[in-house]
Amino acid sequence: MEILRGNAVVGQSGGPTAAINASLAGVISGLLECENVTTVYGMRNGIEGFLREDLIDLTSVFGNDEKESKLRLLSHTPASALGSCRKKLPAPEGNEEFYENLISLFKKYDIRYFFYIGGNDSMDTVAKLTKYTANCNYDIKVIGVPKTIDNDLCATDHTPGFGSAAKYIATTVQEIIRDCAVYTVPAVTIVEIMGRDAGWLTVSSGLGRIVTGYAPDYIYLPERDFSLDRFIDDVKAALSRHPNVVIAVSEGLRDKNGTYVGEGTQSGVADVFGHKYLSGTGKALELYVKEKLGCKVRSVELNISQRCASHIASRRDIEESFNVGLAAAKAAEGGCTGCMMAIEREEGDGYSVKYTAKEIAGIANAVKRVPDGFINGEGNNVTDEALRYILPLIEGEIDLDYKCGLPEYFVFN
Amino acid sequence: MEILRGNAVVGQSGGPTAAINASLAGVISGLLECENVTTVYGMRNGIEGFLREDLIDLTSVFGNDEKESKLRLLSHTPASALGSCRKKLPAPEGNEEFYENLISLFKKYDIRYFFYIGGNDSMDTVAKLTKYTANCNYDIKVIGVPKTIDNDLCATDHTPGFGSAAKYIATTVQEIIRDCAVYTVPAVTIVEIMGRDAGWLTVSSGLGRIVTGYAPDYIYLPERDFSLDRFIDDVKAALSRHPNVVIAVSEGLRDKNGTYVGEGTQSGVADVFGHKYLSGTGKALELYVKEKLGCKVRSVELNISQRCASHIASRRDIEESFNVGLAAAKAAEGGCTGCMMAIEREEGDGYSVKYTAKEIAGIANAVKRVPDGFINGEGNNVTDEALRYILPLIEGEIDLDYKCGLPEYFVFN
Repeated sequence: MEILRGNAVVGQSGGPTAAINASLAGVISGLLECENVTTVYGMRNGIEGFLREDLIDLTSVFGNDEKESKLRLLSHTPASALGSCRKKLPAPEGNEEFYENLISLFKKYDIRYFFYIGGNDSMDTVAKLTKYTANCNYDIKVIGVPKTIDNDLCATDHTPGFGSAAKYIATTVQEIIRDCAVYTVPAVTIVEIMGRDAGWLTVSSGLGRIVTGYAPDYIYLPERDFSLDRFIDDVKAALSRHPNVVIAVSEGLRDKNGTYVGEGTQSGVADVFGHKYLSGTGKALELYVKEKLGCKVRSVELNISQRCASHIASRRDIEESFNVGLAAAKAAEGGCTGCMMAIEREEGDGYSVKYTAKEIAGIANAVKRVPDGFINGEGNNVTDEALRYILPLIEGEIDLDYKCGLPEYFVFN
Repeated sequence: MEILRGNAVVGQSGGPTAAINASLAGVISGLLECENVTTVYGMRNGIEGFLREDLIDLTSVFGNDEKESKLRLLSHTPASALGSCRKKLPAPEGNEEFYENLISLFKKYDIRYFFYIGGNDSMDTVAKLTKYTANCNYDIKVIGVPKTIDNDLCATDHTPGFGSAAKYIATTVQEIIRDCAVYTVPAVTIVEIMGRDAGWLTVSSGLGRIVTGYAPDYIYLPERDFSLDRFIDDVKAALSRHPNVVIAVSEGLRDKNGTYVGEGTQSGVADVFGHKYLSGTGKALELYVKEKLGCKVRSVELNISQRCASHIASRRDIEESFNVGLAAAKAAEGGCTGCMMAIEREEGDGYSVKYTAKEIAGIANAVKRVPDGFINGEGNNVTDEALRYILPLIEGEIDLDYKCGLPEYFVFN
């Protein structure tokens, strides 16, 4: 095998998570051990920062006696320590100037290894860069490292960051159910959970059902057409069983015509990827229940804590996120390019995984939805099979470093 | 001293907290040691449950070999394990029939010790019961145990439950600030924090400033008249310094005429105590910033997790909450009645407290607001003095019992 010597660069992109820095720590850890890599650079704010040559020398920061403690602190720090961006690369065809500029920057910094940690849109960047560099006469290894709380990336059993978000959601929903249970007056609490097209995070609100017994009465996912009439019937049925009803809903609920439940209250603004910003699914349902049933009702939006609540991160998720970054470094060293690292769940009784490289083409811009077998027949709850699938991903707690009662974080100076 | 022999009853009332069960555990622990008390009863759903004789024999539940482990689990369990109510007792004058019925129930169950754990409205119950029983020829000791995340009870240095809520808020706001910092596009994030009349919880959002360096750009409390014009000027000033602006606001912000910022979006419904239900202070400010500045803006309502996020409870708060319950049992045994137990912060360099009984008259229905010295001159932030005052209350973490990645709770069977 030909040995490719030079430098490496790593970036983070898309929405941050509680585990994305663990993957960064894994990539750094792997690259520092790699004798073909001289300097590991970090790009500030993803590809945007790389294009303006906003680089940080990670070898200087981590390649010293404090490596272990610094990488550990980084692994427990929420949000993208290198910053993020939402820049979408142009199509390789017809945008040669853009890519030639990129290649000239690779040459300038002798970048031979390129790592991009992110979700669907970031894998699109990896795919385009792979496509261009395949025929550009500059040898560079391009590897994607998956990251998204949404768990909607294809080709990987689950995504780094999902387990921590799921643990936060399941824990918080348990607490909300306890909180709601104290009064005897009939009341409905609607918990809105992130998930535009895939309901994985909303599924996780039900985890308590097979562990502690605390779970929402109903769980609605974007994988099923949502009907306001059936929803009200479900709420009535729940209220007939007990006074304190808790319901989990995905932000992306749509009726059979594809109209979002929160459409009336959403901003209508779309981001550069054409995603519509949603808001108010929970609030819209709150107002609807109030109007139809007249009972006490409130909505709770778990909001951005779902992706940054590192204080209740899953130890397994943090460890796997680190390992997937480490595996990416090793794969690149072994000559792999044009790949996304994936987590494969191994067959057998216990839970075990291996990390494999999957060809990037076809991964980006595809969405992995919750499968039929994970949703009940009525489309208003999840199956035990779904919960047993997610449960191993939330196991274990991390030992944060606390100072005067507050978690400490890693900071690039 | 005359010895009063008989049974005891304890109840929980008002909004639940992450620490109210620790106070219940403290009361139970103290009473189980008290040789004058035969049976300790718990009232389900506060005084409402007592009136319908919905009692649980706590001596049977806890007075056995499993006492320590059960009390420990109870201490770490969020929300009122005995259930709660919002019932307001009628005035003793002119409602003799109501109170005679209550006394007949005390006699029926030989109740000689009455403990009520709650906030302002619960202390009103204690005060009225004290007033009536003072002249009713039935000897009973009536003690209030303070509880409220709002920290707005008079006569106590701080309230059990506040420290855990403050720790949750400070931790979550740190995480939100990290999350918001990843992009370079100017954006404003408004975090709405509970506090109708007192801004204590909102103050605590700033704790990171003196520990880790993470704190909101501005903090607005209900103790100061709120001006939309000054607010917009502040936001502009913050945006001129850095792109990612985070602002903490109390739900109870009012302008100089007393009109709530969220008035346009509130439900207008008032509860039995005449409190107006507020909603939308953060949302109202989000829409205002959007209109005036046109930048990216969002609002985050921390919502009920503020009072039930026991997974990030303050160890000091849980210990003090237990101790204040324990002290209540001891005080009653010593003949004390018509009192609320208070936490007194002792003079000196380190942090230490003692627990004392304060006469209940005058405590209920008064609100302790954030003092002038804790708010900066511009009324848009808090002083270091305020933060140093709160900081000891969030110190220490608790060791929860986890099962398959989820916290376990105490349940009365």
